[in-house]
Amino acid sequence: MLQPVAKAETYRLSRTSVPALDAHLGIPYQVLDHGFVRCVDYLGSDQSIVQAARVSYGDGTKHTSNDRGLIRYLMRHWHTTPFEMCEIKLHMKLPIFVARQMVRHRTASINEYSARYSLLSGDFYVPELDKIAKQSEVNNQGRGAVLDKDAAHRVREGMMAVGEDAFAVYNHFNEEEVGLARELSRTVLPVSTYTEWYWKIDLHNLFHFLRLRADPHAQYEVRVYAEVICELVKDWVPVAYEAFEDYRRNAVSLSAQQRAYVRGILRHDHLPPEHYGLTAREAQEVEDWLSCS
Amino acid sequence: MLQPVAKAETYRLSRTSVPALDAHLGIPYQVLDHGFVRCVDYLGSDQSIVQAARVSYGDGTKHTSNDRGLIRYLMRHWHTTPFEMCEIKLHMKLPIFVARQMVRHRTASINEYSARYSLLSGDFYVPELDKIAKQSEVNNQGRGAVLDKDAAHRVREGMMAVGEDAFAVYNHFNEEEVGLARELSRTVLPVSTYTEWYWKIDLHNLFHFLRLRADPHAQYEVRVYAEVICELVKDWVPVAYEAFEDYRRNAVSLSAQQRAYVRGILRHDHLPPEHYGLTAREAQEVEDWLSCS
Amino acid sequence: MLQPVAKAETYRLSRTSVPALDAHLGIPYQVLDHGFVRCVDYLGSDQSIVQAARVSYGDGTKHTSNDRGLIRYLMRHWHTTPFEMCEIKLHMKLPIFVARQMVRHRTASINEYSARYSLLSGDFYVPELDKIAKQSEVNNQGRGAVLDKDAAHRVREGMMAVGEDAFAVYNHFNEEEVGLARELSRTVLPVSTYTEWYWKIDLHNLFHFLRLRADPHAQYEVRVYAEVICELVKDWVPVAYEAFEDYRRNAVSLSAQQRAYVRGILRHDHLPPEHYGLTAREAQEVEDWLSCS
Amino acid sequence: MLQPVAKAETYRLSRTSVPALDAHLGIPYQVLDHGFVRCVDYLGSDQSIVQAARVSYGDGTKHTSNDRGLIRYLMRHWHTTPFEMCEIKLHMKLPIFVARQMVRHRTASINEYSARYSLLSGDFYVPELDKIAKQSEVNNQGRGAVLDKDAAHRVREGMMAVGEDAFAVYNHFNEEEVGLARELSRTVLPVSTYTEWYWKIDLHNLFHFLRLRADPHAQYEVRVYAEVICELVKDWVPVAYEAFEDYRRNAVSLSAQQRAYVRGILRHDHLPPEHYGLTAREAQEVEDWLSCS
Repeated sequence: MLQPVAKAETYRLSRTSVPALDAHLGIPYQVLDHGFVRCVDYLGSDQSIVQAARVSYGDGTKHTSNDRGLIRYLMRHWHTTPFEMCEIKLHMKLPIFVARQMVRHRTASINEYSARYSLLSGDFYVPELDKIAKQSEVNNQGRGAVLDKDAAHRVREGMMAVGEDAFAVYNHFNEEEVGLARELSRTVLPVSTYTEWYWKIDLHNLFHFLRLRADPHAQYEVRVYAEVICELVKDWVPVAYEAFEDYRRNAVSLSAQQRAYVRGILRHDHLPPEHYGLTAREAQEVEDWLSCS
Repeated sequence: MLQPVAKAETYRLSRTSVPALDAHLGIPYQVLDHGFVRCVDYLGSDQSIVQAARVSYGDGTKHTSNDRGLIRYLMRHWHTTPFEMCEIKLHMKLPIFVARQMVRHRTASINEYSARYSLLSGDFYVPELDKIAKQSEVNNQGRGAVLDKDAAHRVREGMMAVGEDAFAVYNHFNEEEVGLARELSRTVLPVSTYTEWYWKIDLHNLFHFLRLRADPHAQYEVRVYAEVICELVKDWVPVAYEAFEDYRRNAVSLSAQQRAYVRGILRHDHLPPEHYGLTAREAQEVEDWLSCS
Repeated sequence: MLQPVAKAETYRLSRTSVPALDAHLGIPYQVLDHGFVRCVDYLGSDQSIVQAARVSYGDGTKHTSNDRGLIRYLMRHWHTTPFEMCEIKLHMKLPIFVARQMVRHRTASINEYSARYSLLSGDFYVPELDKIAKQSEVNNQGRGAVLDKDAAHRVREGMMAVGEDAFAVYNHFNEEEVGLARELSRTVLPVSTYTEWYWKIDLHNLFHFLRLRADPHAQYEVRVYAEVICELVKDWVPVAYEAFEDYRRNAVSLSAQQRAYVRGILRHDHLPPEHYGLTAREAQEVEDWLSCS
Repeated sequence: MLQPVAKAETYRLSRTSVPALDAHLGIPYQVLDHGFVRCVDYLGSDQSIVQAARVSYGDGTKHTSNDRGLIRYLMRHWHTTPFEMCEIKLHMKLPIFVARQMVRHRTASINEYSARYSLLSGDFYVPELDKIAKQSEVNNQGRGAVLDKDAAHRVREGMMAVGEDAFAVYNHFNEEEVGLARELSRTVLPVSTYTEWYWKIDLHNLFHFLRLRADPHAQYEVRVYAEVICELVKDWVPVAYEAFEDYRRNAVSLSAQQRAYVRGILRHDHLPPEHYGLTAREAQEVEDWLSCS
């Protein structure tokens, strides 16, 4: 029923593959105390981004002398669809409270372990001593100073006790003599319990995820997953990843007011930030970004 | 800068409103022990579905004599975009394990209470005695017979104890003398803990959600939320809701093999289901749907 | 920086590949007069669907004796996420009016040839004589009887003339002496003009597309693209494709009223369809599906 | 069946409404020669953004002294979900080639006029003389200098002729004596033909659309639609719109290299842009943004 066009053979292709990522396939890389990230499969490469862009722009891309230049141009100008042409599929083991943050990235496809169908193994997350920190006083959603060692020990013990007690009750509920429905017994488990899933996402949306979750403001426990994924992406699409670092991750956005302020500094206007409508924090950002003191 | 066209005034509109849903606005309806659903706002009505469809089909819809007929035609033929023209926004309080099921419906917009920013009040879900049931032996993800009253009591006590202990540790962690970061202290809380969110979804995607989650195979604790939402939708878009019940919720899908089997019965072929390639369970479905014994 | 877990080597994987689809890679298959579909790359296989499902269900899937049974179970029960774990990337050449229908499937990733950047080659679609048909009188959006040969010839000539004139003007506008911006010159081209794109979609959403567009009610010119894609999918994921045919493409949905009517027939109630609330067309559907006369 | 919680009455709400936008409802505002944008309905207001954010952050938002401050904080930190809580529904008449650009914003819900169902009126777009410009030599997808008046006249006449001829053939095909299926007769029409649709989108995704399409690099014919929509949004959610202007539309993104370059200027390093890895165009951008000469 399929009718090849004339000279169809000359168009024949092999699949894109990336030996540097193939070397990682299936290997679980450790994250936190019981978690991991392992790459299961992928679609595309740096070359696939170029290939898709050249369909869009036809002859128009001849001006861009090389593939690296084209990929950087696409990233810089928010031409995002060529990056959607690559996909990565990861198998992850992660605490439920981390999964709850990741699942908000709605463009990912997910198959998660179901505790309605199957029993959970008993792994739950307890932070290392040097990760046990006080509530930040400047950042409502962040950590401040690390607790002293004794206090941190007591926190860890408290966490261990809650987790172990919850799993003891869970296991008892699932014993034959009680035989509680699994969809009910699992309700006692803490959000630190580890779950597993397959998580598939395209490169454009993955970069968006990494920008938010590999950021210093993200919670440490999700950031470590994002950082492992960064390492894999660097080996998979090195040129696109470098462009992501330059034009997204390490880029800064100057608001209209911040632009005016920087322009003022360059003109030696010697006017305070409030003159340009900046809040104190926005002025501080400019300082941090440009060290323009 | 805006330039009205000639006779623009004659096109002037008021917003669509539905008094029957207005009567519910803001009222929290109880679900489970500490949960609720309250409708906060909405966009559109049965009339909006018709209005959007008439843009698509122009004169083509004149053949359909009336609005009810048109809405039923759209539902029957999977013309789904007119139903996307309506939106509903709900404020809900629900256990985390229920939220985890709902969040998989990726077309909803969600703003959830953040336990990184703010403290949780201490509410967690414990089922009523008559909802505490055994693991089903026929359905890997379902409940079977209710436990006897004493056993159910012990389960409730176990659940209460785990929840109370977890919140005691959580509250201690948050006290000034410990001052643990909230993003860490919350990790000990059980997935039965109540969270809150604003959940906004369009009517097409809501019907898809209701079809799956108001279904008898859905977990009881999510089904009760779906059922309250059904009541609100019935008052909001009564004609579309009736069409949903007739063409989705109470409809059945016959596979190619099931069609052949039913055709065989009607022809008095007297052949067993296996002859048509049905599994035992698929044959049973036909029995259940059509009582064709 | 990546830290493999203990015994990580034992988890090592190779990429999934499907030799039957590899044999098609890159080959353009003819569609309509100047169009084609060629598979450029893909992710996953029947085996990937099973793999993702087994993560979700853990031990719960042991009851399903084999992979084919599991895939059919997933399809039958609308467990759609495992099918999202497969992706296919197609390079297509297609008329703009066909592209306009396909683009409404919003889950696809698309890179389309840009007529703002580059010149178009001059290909436009003109139907074969036996595809030139009258407006249907029963279906507002369909074709009826084929025109007689002379009338069809005149239609073809009319279409050729419009297309050739439009391209003559377009080419003149782009000549150096006029040098009109390409984004303006292309506005004169007919919607029958061929465009090209890369189109990437996951298997779940592709099945949804195929169900609607390989259907006899779809316009012929989009249906032929869907049918070529069906052939490729059949070679790629044969078990999933068979399940799609049985549980979607050749399945029928009986409304609540239609169920009641069929039940009545089986009970020899001898009541007319109106008794059960069926419209004439819904009764006809039951006849067509079940030949229950 | 609905069970209000205790003191439910005290939570009762009215719908959010915005009188400044109500004043526009239904009024078609002229765009191009035959197009328009009219707001049909909407959901939410500035207040709804605040309301949703306060659910997320609970007590955490008390530090932000006022609603304007909170909305600007959300915009600045890419907390996008509260903006998804607002929706706007527009009725538009627009050329097909503009619709083809807009439809790529996949988060919008669309009901478009179907030329398979119904006949088109005969309106097609022809640009004003002062909009008829040469292909840009610096920008592959843009316009350069306006044509001289005579040349522009000839272009207009060429466009008029193609459009009128195409519609003459189209109308002939649809006459009773030919009676060609509408799905075929429409294939001769140019992409300048006007279509109509209902287009519904949430505020977050609308801002993304406006950022790209109200930009000077967007094609003029889509930009004028974006600009009319900007005027409506300004009246609908004035605080959010102002934040959008400051933090998105008039903000600039400095790449890692551009930051280093600006830092160098501020330190009086007197090094050329290449030293920091900037391309000539990226250096020019910095000049344009900051006038740092």
